[in-house]
Amino acid sequence: MDNTDTPVTVIGLGLMGRALAGAFLKAGHPTTVWNRTSSKADPLVADGARLASSVGDALKTGGLTIICVTDYEAVRELLGASDAGLDGATLINLTSGSSGQARETARWAERRGARYLDGAVMAIPSAIGTDEAVILHSGAQADFEAHRPTLDALGTVTYLGADHGLASLYDVAGLAMMWSVLNAWLQGTALLRTAGVDAATYATFARQMAAGVADWLPGYAEQIDKGAFPAEVSAMETDARAMAHLIEESEAVGVNAELPKLIKSMADRSIAAGHGKEQYPVLIEEFSKPGNDH
Amino acid sequence: MDNTDTPVTVIGLGLMGRALAGAFLKAGHPTTVWNRTSSKADPLVADGARLASSVGDALKTGGLTIICVTDYEAVRELLGASDAGLDGATLINLTSGSSGQARETARWAERRGARYLDGAVMAIPSAIGTDEAVILHSGAQADFEAHRPTLDALGTVTYLGADHGLASLYDVAGLAMMWSVLNAWLQGTALLRTAGVDAATYATFARQMAAGVADWLPGYAEQIDKGAFPAEVSAMETDARAMAHLIEESEAVGVNAELPKLIKSMADRSIAAGHGKEQYPVLIEEFSKPGNDH
Repeated sequence: MDNTDTPVTVIGLGLMGRALAGAFLKAGHPTTVWNRTSSKADPLVADGARLASSVGDALKTGGLTIICVTDYEAVRELLGASDAGLDGATLINLTSGSSGQARETARWAERRGARYLDGAVMAIPSAIGTDEAVILHSGAQADFEAHRPTLDALGTVTYLGADHGLASLYDVAGLAMMWSVLNAWLQGTALLRTAGVDAATYATFARQMAAGVADWLPGYAEQIDKGAFPAEVSAMETDARAMAHLIEESEAVGVNAELPKLIKSMADRSIAAGHGKEQYPVLIEEFSKPGNDH
Repeated sequence: MDNTDTPVTVIGLGLMGRALAGAFLKAGHPTTVWNRTSSKADPLVADGARLASSVGDALKTGGLTIICVTDYEAVRELLGASDAGLDGATLINLTSGSSGQARETARWAERRGARYLDGAVMAIPSAIGTDEAVILHSGAQADFEAHRPTLDALGTVTYLGADHGLASLYDVAGLAMMWSVLNAWLQGTALLRTAGVDAATYATFARQMAAGVADWLPGYAEQIDKGAFPAEVSAMETDARAMAHLIEESEAVGVNAELPKLIKSMADRSIAAGHGKEQYPVLIEEFSKPGNDH
């Protein structure tokens, strides 16, 4: 069968679901759609999609079923209703949720005879169908590989591993990186604006800095995997002195110092735990435990 | 005069000072050094440096004087003592400190007849003399340009602007980016390790994510410089829901949630201030004010 002949079903036609269905239609796949409010399907039907009369009807199409709804509760409610016909279906759940929910839902779906992959869309709806849309998948590799040619219509699709929780974990971890780079940039922008430097000027420097530090990560990861943190570059106690400068400077020029203080408080705890002569990645020990709450 | 004939003086022979003096010697500059504990100069003297008998003697050499000591107080104490002979000297102060201290020290030195540049070394001592060592300078551009050929011996030298405080501000802003990328990577590593993913595997993903987000900064900076934050990519209130997922996931798998909570608390404040429908860079308003303390 030619790739584009594979029938695809999309359940849930929010902004993201409509983008997913649109990308499948554009790639030539016979596409069935379903949404609680069926009018959301109108533009897709105009583009050639078939509107299913029920979730059960949508699942009967065979091929691949993508579900992208509000939350995991909605997934179970929709798919568990009456005779939704999960037996023999292949489901890819792109709904946002936790790793625990992904694993539970995988077992729930498998008990009902379905093949189940969990996924996370690291993209905005308008990027779907382009290489910029990164879509993460976890679950049985054979199921991923079997449908990869179809999934390719959505963007850059990636397989993470058999544990169904991985897509959710990578998703939130990646978002933590996104917000952290943005927040550090905003902290720097706020600092530099007090000296009349515009955001565009500082952004060039911040971009180089972020990309430069990103390049250290594989090397630093080796220290974590070995569990040994020799101070090859710098020791935590030296870093902590520079962190104090960051806090003092932020306070002196009247910008927010919460991020600088969080950075230093975690380092201080690591030093108090005896790691002052070790290198930054030793902080993994602080990040790996629940820690103090604000 | 050939560049490498320019005499250079280095005051302060800690780890960094010794690295700076070593790089000048290696580039062929007649190099004078001074340190409170003169024995620190021994290896440099063995390599051809001249040991000055006092700070005043060191300054008499002419050419360029680099000072790199513990703090700005030590700078003023050393250079201000008796007849240190600042009149006519060109000083580059690479001591760590705040933008306020840099500006004050510039005025102090200029009142004594010196040309003064403030600088910040964004490198570890062992990188000095290589392109990887980024050294930031602020002050009169003519003074920087006059000595740039000499400074090139130290690494990648950069001029930021006439405001003497800029080198310190860029320095701490860059460090905030460094620690933020590292902390976000550690947060993700801690999350993924709960699913048995090793640090090296996750580092590849984290590196791509950090570099990818870094590429957005110039575009986001335009929003700040225009003061308009249309939600072209995503609105703050959508981001806040994903931030809640990050917190829930961190808590569910038992890793530290302080960084996720700080991320969300700043976003929540921005939303409470009426920016829920705007895009992430609107958070500059929160970063630009002192804000709540922990």
